[in-house]
Amino acid sequence: MKIKVAVLGATGMVGQRFIQPLVDHPFFELSCLAASGRSAGKPYKEATKWVLDENMPEGIGDTVVVACDPKEVDADIVFSALPSSIAKEVEPAFAKAGFIVASNASTYRMGPDIPLLIPEVNPEHLDMIEVQKKNHGWDGCIVTNPNCSTIMAILSMKPVFDAFGIESAFVATMQAISGAGYSGVKSMAILDNVIPFIGGEEDKVETEGQKLLGKFNGEKIEFADFKVSASCNRVHVLDGHTENVFLKTREPCTPEDVKKVMRDFKALPQELKLPTAPENPIIVREEPDRPQPRLDRGAGNGMSVTVGRVRKDSIFDVKYTVMGHNTIRGAAGASILNAELIYKKVLNL
Amino acid sequence: MKIKVAVLGATGMVGQRFIQPLVDHPFFELSCLAASGRSAGKPYKEATKWVLDENMPEGIGDTVVVACDPKEVDADIVFSALPSSIAKEVEPAFAKAGFIVASNASTYRMGPDIPLLIPEVNPEHLDMIEVQKKNHGWDGCIVTNPNCSTIMAILSMKPVFDAFGIESAFVATMQAISGAGYSGVKSMAILDNVIPFIGGEEDKVETEGQKLLGKFNGEKIEFADFKVSASCNRVHVLDGHTENVFLKTREPCTPEDVKKVMRDFKALPQELKLPTAPENPIIVREEPDRPQPRLDRGAGNGMSVTVGRVRKDSIFDVKYTVMGHNTIRGAAGASILNAELIYKKVLNL
Amino acid sequence: MKIKVAVLGATGMVGQRFIQPLVDHPFFELSCLAASGRSAGKPYKEATKWVLDENMPEGIGDTVVVACDPKEVDADIVFSALPSSIAKEVEPAFAKAGFIVASNASTYRMGPDIPLLIPEVNPEHLDMIEVQKKNHGWDGCIVTNPNCSTIMAILSMKPVFDAFGIESAFVATMQAISGAGYSGVKSMAILDNVIPFIGGEEDKVETEGQKLLGKFNGEKIEFADFKVSASCNRVHVLDGHTENVFLKTREPCTPEDVKKVMRDFKALPQELKLPTAPENPIIVREEPDRPQPRLDRGAGNGMSVTVGRVRKDSIFDVKYTVMGHNTIRGAAGASILNAELIYKKVLNL
Amino acid sequence: MKIKVAVLGATGMVGQRFIQPLVDHPFFELSCLAASGRSAGKPYKEATKWVLDENMPEGIGDTVVVACDPKEVDADIVFSALPSSIAKEVEPAFAKAGFIVASNASTYRMGPDIPLLIPEVNPEHLDMIEVQKKNHGWDGCIVTNPNCSTIMAILSMKPVFDAFGIESAFVATMQAISGAGYSGVKSMAILDNVIPFIGGEEDKVETEGQKLLGKFNGEKIEFADFKVSASCNRVHVLDGHTENVFLKTREPCTPEDVKKVMRDFKALPQELKLPTAPENPIIVREEPDRPQPRLDRGAGNGMSVTVGRVRKDSIFDVKYTVMGHNTIRGAAGASILNAELIYKKVLNL
Repeated sequence: MKIKVAVLGATGMVGQRFIQPLVDHPFFELSCLAASGRSAGKPYKEATKWVLDENMPEGIGDTVVVACDPKEVDADIVFSALPSSIAKEVEPAFAKAGFIVASNASTYRMGPDIPLLIPEVNPEHLDMIEVQKKNHGWDGCIVTNPNCSTIMAILSMKPVFDAFGIESAFVATMQAISGAGYSGVKSMAILDNVIPFIGGEEDKVETEGQKLLGKFNGEKIEFADFKVSASCNRVHVLDGHTENVFLKTREPCTPEDVKKVMRDFKALPQELKLPTAPENPIIVREEPDRPQPRLDRGAGNGMSVTVGRVRKDSIFDVKYTVMGHNTIRGAAGASILNAELIYKKVLNL
Repeated sequence: MKIKVAVLGATGMVGQRFIQPLVDHPFFELSCLAASGRSAGKPYKEATKWVLDENMPEGIGDTVVVACDPKEVDADIVFSALPSSIAKEVEPAFAKAGFIVASNASTYRMGPDIPLLIPEVNPEHLDMIEVQKKNHGWDGCIVTNPNCSTIMAILSMKPVFDAFGIESAFVATMQAISGAGYSGVKSMAILDNVIPFIGGEEDKVETEGQKLLGKFNGEKIEFADFKVSASCNRVHVLDGHTENVFLKTREPCTPEDVKKVMRDFKALPQELKLPTAPENPIIVREEPDRPQPRLDRGAGNGMSVTVGRVRKDSIFDVKYTVMGHNTIRGAAGASILNAELIYKKVLNL
Repeated sequence: MKIKVAVLGATGMVGQRFIQPLVDHPFFELSCLAASGRSAGKPYKEATKWVLDENMPEGIGDTVVVACDPKEVDADIVFSALPSSIAKEVEPAFAKAGFIVASNASTYRMGPDIPLLIPEVNPEHLDMIEVQKKNHGWDGCIVTNPNCSTIMAILSMKPVFDAFGIESAFVATMQAISGAGYSGVKSMAILDNVIPFIGGEEDKVETEGQKLLGKFNGEKIEFADFKVSASCNRVHVLDGHTENVFLKTREPCTPEDVKKVMRDFKALPQELKLPTAPENPIIVREEPDRPQPRLDRGAGNGMSVTVGRVRKDSIFDVKYTVMGHNTIRGAAGASILNAELIYKKVLNL
Repeated sequence: MKIKVAVLGATGMVGQRFIQPLVDHPFFELSCLAASGRSAGKPYKEATKWVLDENMPEGIGDTVVVACDPKEVDADIVFSALPSSIAKEVEPAFAKAGFIVASNASTYRMGPDIPLLIPEVNPEHLDMIEVQKKNHGWDGCIVTNPNCSTIMAILSMKPVFDAFGIESAFVATMQAISGAGYSGVKSMAILDNVIPFIGGEEDKVETEGQKLLGKFNGEKIEFADFKVSASCNRVHVLDGHTENVFLKTREPCTPEDVKKVMRDFKALPQELKLPTAPENPIIVREEPDRPQPRLDRGAGNGMSVTVGRVRKDSIFDVKYTVMGHNTIRGAAGASILNAELIYKKVLNL
């Protein structure tokens, strides 16, 4: 049984990323594309400048865009690819009006009753939806996915956290230009260059993980007790965030131990065979020079993260490099996987 | 009074980098270009394919290249831009024959009686030359400079080490393609990509610093007691290595403390006004998005390192980003500055 | 009925490009991978360094590589991805031994009895095989495809040539780095740069077209009477050659005329529904800023060329830009399409 | 004797390019920086985001920006780096108020009484200033420089035009991203790509040359009788436009003839030793793979164009490649050289 879904902010680059996987999706029927008032009323192909390397799926271009208004949107789940400033008002309005909002925006991620979800990491946090509905008197709800850099880091840490505990993690990122949106990084800024700063990014990477790996006690999340320090950089790569991770674990572990728990890692989305869940959430490679964004970002249709160079650390316990597709696993694909889990475990379809 | 200097390995990219600063140098007269037997006997312009963006200095092209043989070379100091495998035999042969070898090769850096020198960091290690001569029965000597990534990291840490002590340092590097030599990185490997591995690099960054910050006790170096963990990456930048540094200090310190000691840092090369010593070895910038390799690698004619984003760390004490020109401050310029210090303090000219 | 095929030079980048389309091919069974003596005897995964963005197809890695020797190779058709210097001796040896050689090498392209083939352009040139066999006393034969830049230019000109005639053509190319092979272009050479020269390329573009558009008179090719002038440049693009074309036609024609004949263009491979023949050999786009290599190189699985900006020329009659995937339509895919045509029209299978 | 000059549009990228050469200029004193009302009243360092690789010259940052209003600007010559839409009203207002406007904007280039000037090409067109003043009743005047791509093409053609005549010229350009201004080309648009279109560019290249090489008959310009056809492309290069040129001359000539007249070419700016005039306006190189933008854009401090690959053409007479720095010789430097010529020949200083 298919349910209707809509994309809010459908004309931006992440909005475009939502469309292809939702065409011919086994759970979802893409019924509506919503965007700002300026775009409303126009056929999608006129309202957006398509920027993905793959062509726009057939038939989508003639869909008439509607405003991001609950009264205009006919859907059960809405995906939010809105900028955080717009999401602030729009997402609660949809939740109030009874929609399930699967949001990629950062606005409500840290809200005390908002699930911040990676389906392989903390599916049980979906139980918080009931608390949220009660707190706000909403018929619908908001479920968020983390920041793109957080996802790669925490998804790769999850099996280590479960097996050995984590006390501290340093994360140095080399992030793709697509993470800033289509117009975010000027070519004159990044050609032959590195920009060692991404506004707001380090704070997200340093704080979201504790919520993700925290425990829902029936009322609220008890944050996991570990520290993350991040240094975030923009490099000249189209798609794919690469991250150097240094981990201090609570129990001793060897690089071989870490590789084993990562390779063996399967979680609820794999059990439920959710449509976009990759067979292996974490792919561990043995070549000395992998992962590489151009070569590995397509793994698992962009939904697997690839880990390599797992080795002993001279200060902490272990270090490795993780890489994942920032606008698929780190954005649109993350929200869609959240919605697939909701379809099964909340809507019980 | 000018003394004669020669470049060994003059036809490679780092060899080329040596030439421009040695033309019209106040201490040195570039008397000889030496390279492999294949090049010997040819005019320099035919023996080398000039790859630097600046043109070859006038008059150099007609110099006839000689073999890397002490009998062929007429000079007091020889700069070694040789590959480490070649340096292994050639450098001791020159030292034995009475030459001062200022080497950029990694071969002898960690030798127990070989100075590993950054003139602003450990000029007193030059005293080890006497021990070296005695040990080997050489008339000459070998003095080395560190790996390019080590130099940026340790030069920036030096004033912090002196003021507050350092217990541990994580270093994640984003290194320029020129660091691998002209042919080292294929364009198909690095376009739209990051390569999270550089052979042998991490080991150098993790071990050279303890020698550089160690104490010469009249006999040997007592290595400094701190740990470094590195993760080294190649990014799509022509020149300029960018490094994220996370420091655990022995005494408490604030970001403002760190910036102050870095800004105030001047050392013997500045006092002696060595010709290529930059006025400020460390430039500290306040803009949130600096240093950037394309914008900052030319600072101090490529001999200053630029530090930015000095901020409190959530696990250790302080974190920052440092960037420097890898083939100037990190290679040819490093050896030349070493030789300038030798000119003043060893040859007493 | 499937016949056996082999790849000669299977370990190079173009050799790798041959493999994926030959796995599960309806006409061909990939029975053998051949390479230099150095690789022979090794499993393919050890003999080659896989450089394509897509992973090596499953099961191929364990195939043991054989030498490029007719006695070692069990196949009906051999694809030659050999360097032209090696092809010089190897290809005739295979032809003599009864193999059909579908070659991407430039060595024999201009041979008077060697078909130089683009299946959409001059399929009737295959008739020359009989002449060739007689001339050389071979049981097999050699069939070649043109240079990658020639293919994009001449495939796009073919319908114009047929409809209006062509007197002269200027072609300025902007060619991808993959055209030089994996190690051909150093990153230090091309980053932030254009190299306005590709050895031997202009001569190929200026001479191959007259043979391709010539007539086979039963004995030899009467070359088409038109002139091409080329200026070939290397630009910083992974795959996809972009070419500015300026045409002087024999009959007057408008840009609309040209677009129509290009759009309507279908040829024998489309009629025969050859497995890798694209539905549209030439895709004409109306957007002002297409074709672009990153966005259009995948069209028709890399086998369509994309034309845009068809407009009136102020000196000649019409000008346009054409772009195609240089290692698919311009190399491996070209040879495979040739072989598919041979399968149908020569082997009559 | 120094005269006062101002920059209109000083906060944009081309505006920034004007500043460095005007600091310590022997003819000019930079007295005023003007920009839009939004910037007026602010210190320059706050009004602009400095984007050049070289640092902002000392002392400039504290200059208070004024509005682009003749009453606010104290100068004899104003350089216009304004967008063409703004230049439309502002430049005549300044000319009317008695200023000499040296403009890089395209707005008035083709005006019948407006000199379109390359000092090495058509210095005698400055005589048109008197006609212009009379026509408009202005005390001042407007003098323009051509489009950046036109300058490289026509400067290189000038000695050929004088010696052999030119009937037709095809020009295919590969233009740097800086030509579109700092924010003009998004990194997601150009990474691993070519954009075969630049709005309005081809029309400029096809029409400006006839005016530049035309004759001023005391009243108006008699346009030169030759045709240009252009195809303009954006490539992934920071600075430096590379152009393939194919020439049909009126008199026969060999590549050697063409190289000789280019090499021998000196003009009035060289005779007058104007401060920014390069010793050689055209540098001819013999290496097969030059000019290259990264290696040659700095020639003559960015004011020389470099020509290479001069060779016989198979359709026309001769073909070659020319490259020059688009924001120096092609923009700010062009206007400054114009002003230097005005200083000597119009102001007779």
